[in-house]
Amino acid sequence: MAGTDVLRQNYGRMMQKIKDLAVVYSIDAIMNWDMETKMPPKGINLRSQQLGMLGQLEHKMSTDPEIGQLIDKIRNHPDYESLSEIEKRNVYLTKKNYDEMTKLPEELVVEIAKQSTITVGTWKRAKAAKSFAMFKPELEKLFELKKKAAEILMDVKGTATPYDALIDMHESAMTSEKITKLFDELRDGLVKIISKSTSSPKQPDESFLSRKVPVDVQQKIANSLVKVIGYDIDSPAAGGRIDETEHPFTNGYYDDVRITTHYYEDNFASSIFSILHEGGHAMYEQNLRPEWMFQPIGTGCSTGFHESQSRFVENIFGRSQEFWSYYLPQLKGLTGNLSDVSQEKFVHAINAVKPSKIRVEADEVTYCLHVIIRFNIERDWFAGKISVSDLPQVWNEQYMNYLGMKIQDDSEGLMQDTHWGIGYFGYFPSYALGNIYSGQLLAALKKDMPDWNQQIAKGNFQAIRQWLTTNVHTYGNLYDPADLIKKIAGDEINTKHFLNYLNEKYSTLYEY
Amino acid sequence: MAGTDVLRQNYGRMMQKIKDLAVVYSIDAIMNWDMETKMPPKGINLRSQQLGMLGQLEHKMSTDPEIGQLIDKIRNHPDYESLSEIEKRNVYLTKKNYDEMTKLPEELVVEIAKQSTITVGTWKRAKAAKSFAMFKPELEKLFELKKKAAEILMDVKGTATPYDALIDMHESAMTSEKITKLFDELRDGLVKIISKSTSSPKQPDESFLSRKVPVDVQQKIANSLVKVIGYDIDSPAAGGRIDETEHPFTNGYYDDVRITTHYYEDNFASSIFSILHEGGHAMYEQNLRPEWMFQPIGTGCSTGFHESQSRFVENIFGRSQEFWSYYLPQLKGLTGNLSDVSQEKFVHAINAVKPSKIRVEADEVTYCLHVIIRFNIERDWFAGKISVSDLPQVWNEQYMNYLGMKIQDDSEGLMQDTHWGIGYFGYFPSYALGNIYSGQLLAALKKDMPDWNQQIAKGNFQAIRQWLTTNVHTYGNLYDPADLIKKIAGDEINTKHFLNYLNEKYSTLYEY
Repeated sequence: MAGTDVLRQNYGRMMQKIKDLAVVYSIDAIMNWDMETKMPPKGINLRSQQLGMLGQLEHKMSTDPEIGQLIDKIRNHPDYESLSEIEKRNVYLTKKNYDEMTKLPEELVVEIAKQSTITVGTWKRAKAAKSFAMFKPELEKLFELKKKAAEILMDVKGTATPYDALIDMHESAMTSEKITKLFDELRDGLVKIISKSTSSPKQPDESFLSRKVPVDVQQKIANSLVKVIGYDIDSPAAGGRIDETEHPFTNGYYDDVRITTHYYEDNFASSIFSILHEGGHAMYEQNLRPEWMFQPIGTGCSTGFHESQSRFVENIFGRSQEFWSYYLPQLKGLTGNLSDVSQEKFVHAINAVKPSKIRVEADEVTYCLHVIIRFNIERDWFAGKISVSDLPQVWNEQYMNYLGMKIQDDSEGLMQDTHWGIGYFGYFPSYALGNIYSGQLLAALKKDMPDWNQQIAKGNFQAIRQWLTTNVHTYGNLYDPADLIKKIAGDEINTKHFLNYLNEKYSTLYEY
Repeated sequence: MAGTDVLRQNYGRMMQKIKDLAVVYSIDAIMNWDMETKMPPKGINLRSQQLGMLGQLEHKMSTDPEIGQLIDKIRNHPDYESLSEIEKRNVYLTKKNYDEMTKLPEELVVEIAKQSTITVGTWKRAKAAKSFAMFKPELEKLFELKKKAAEILMDVKGTATPYDALIDMHESAMTSEKITKLFDELRDGLVKIISKSTSSPKQPDESFLSRKVPVDVQQKIANSLVKVIGYDIDSPAAGGRIDETEHPFTNGYYDDVRITTHYYEDNFASSIFSILHEGGHAMYEQNLRPEWMFQPIGTGCSTGFHESQSRFVENIFGRSQEFWSYYLPQLKGLTGNLSDVSQEKFVHAINAVKPSKIRVEADEVTYCLHVIIRFNIERDWFAGKISVSDLPQVWNEQYMNYLGMKIQDDSEGLMQDTHWGIGYFGYFPSYALGNIYSGQLLAALKKDMPDWNQQIAKGNFQAIRQWLTTNVHTYGNLYDPADLIKKIAGDEINTKHFLNYLNEKYSTLYEY
């Protein structure tokens, strides 16, 4: 065989292994979806055996030494440069994942898995008992193990700090130094908007948001909303569906991407915005390039970019004056009990700025502050500047400083999220990075489509969705997020556009 | 290590491999269930990749040469006899399955898989076009391949004929010679009952069965029926659920066994009896001995025994006077439009004897004749007494002889079922064997519980279900069906009890 043939053969073999792995992951996704939505409760033990088996298989397939050998053969081949940009990216992503999966000693991986089961279990009990003392020793053990892993990954990845190695797993090539700069700016900007909004004499009346809307009416609203955004759940070629779970999520791959929501009778807005949020995630997955299916590049670019899509649809689109000028009459028709609510009143209420203690209940403006607080703590914790014992004090101080909230106990404080209990460190920043990207995307969209808001007012989201597909979705994971945002927006990641968007919107709403 | 330790270690290792395989099969079951019930239509291509991957994995795991080596080591070990009856049965069943999976040449297995895809596809088109000529060449190819496989399996299993080797895969150790004897008796008995019933002056009025019952009311009926039979779909410990599919089925394993039904607005009885039928299958799976989960013995005894459970619940219980004396008032309350229908009228209508052309629409009495016709044809076909060209003529003659039906075209004749198109030969007899077993079970139940019908009239199915569990379900696959029926009923498999049951029931209904 000629040299290039060997190279191509090895590349093909590597890609086949990645495809097989992607298929197994997609099975795992359905089994998880079923567990959350349809499984009879008694099935839980069998399900844990099934998921355990899939996890074992995924681990075995993704750490298959042959993948490592193929990567080396491909990268060391004299004709390596003959591979296309796409092929090289696939090799790069395969290597990145293979290194993350194989460079940690097996004992450490097992220890982390065991300890996170213990820590998350303890977290649940400690949260219920409002006792950080109970949570602390197990959290500390897990943190130390994750830090050990992060130190090894730092060497493998060549990042500046161990924490950066964890960030890199969600937001490729992003660093805590860059995030610190971005988040400091963002925080200053947000604090000003919050202060102006909350001190404005014009305040929203949110009382109508708790008017009763029966679940079946909310389901009809959900079905009509997904039509507007183009998430197909009922045509003969539908690739989606909506089900109910306590915590909404999106799950799936390409032609089978499912979202969930919850319906609260006395909070109809909750399902509306979770549908739009998850719909944004879903359309990212569904509009990836079909020919990249089962390839490493055939996924979203990063956790942050995924969040930029859900936030764009939920907030920039879904909480805009223009969308509600189109959709409020329909909503009134469906609910039958909002006829006295003007568009102005409605849009102000769904955009009420209210500092709060709980991240997942936060509004568009205050949300990022919750994330920034967690990032600051993780960064300093991994850098050894604070220890696990300091967490409650640091947490509570920052909630007072940035949000003006007095935390009464650690259950409404640092124990509110499950992330640390499962060992998800380095994940939080992506939530706020998503908002930052969404601001830059909006600025770029405005240039390409100056009448974007008139389009929305007409209920035409299709053109905007097409723009997102052309500019974001179809690139899949071809670029690192820093490169993708630059390619789309023309500038480096920066907070200017997101803050501009918020300033413009909230100064109008609150008349400041 | 001592000799017995080696034996026990090998047994443990074999059982671990079987457990892993059972877990993968249970994943496959959920993925199939999801495909039939919930999957967005666009997901079909991805799903075929997922099922293909699981099939590959199952094949690899079940033909793992180490299983063969372990079986040999265990069976040839000097202390083999120290294994318990249960352990020996596990070894026997593992060997049986391993032989079925490994003794066929791989090329033949691949060829059969390919040809069945082609043949079933052709069957669909040929059925639509009412053209046996179109179906014939592909059916012939598939038959010849299956016959080749059956000849090899005959040698492996030591059966008398190739066809017996196929029967053995569904009904262990059953033979076509025994079935011929049973089915000849059964046919003679049935033909008499049909003749007496259809010529009786007293005929049922079935017109009320097409009164409209909305789908949501039928769902309420279904939910109430499963409560009566003890199939739990809504308690916090439920292990079941009901969904809708065109063709009802039962799917699952132990603590997660799901049934489906269809709701026709103008045929409410259809969902009632499919719920009872599938509920009978489901309770078999759910009441297997928990400690046998993931073991070869932890499954139903045979396809026929499975059918005995579904038929028992659907027909012996579900179409009895006693059940409807209890349930008809509830059904009237739920539907609101059956108040003028007496119990006698109702029970006669749901037991109307009506020879027909289509197996799946047949009543309790004529159903077995459809099966017997297929068995006779398969047996003679494999014996070389008839060829594929003879099929339409033989089929149509038998439908005329036994059911008095004139087949107009082959789509309502031999092309009505999918079985031959997929290569399911040797499967049909189990449907009628299930009825035969159910008659013997009824006779045994009557001895143990003389007031069984008063129990039903009180709506107490629990005691009968407990009897079925104690006598059938908990034995799992510990015995071959011939041994199990003898153990329960005290006599060999025979048609007497089933025919007695039918005679008694239909002579009363039709007053002959």
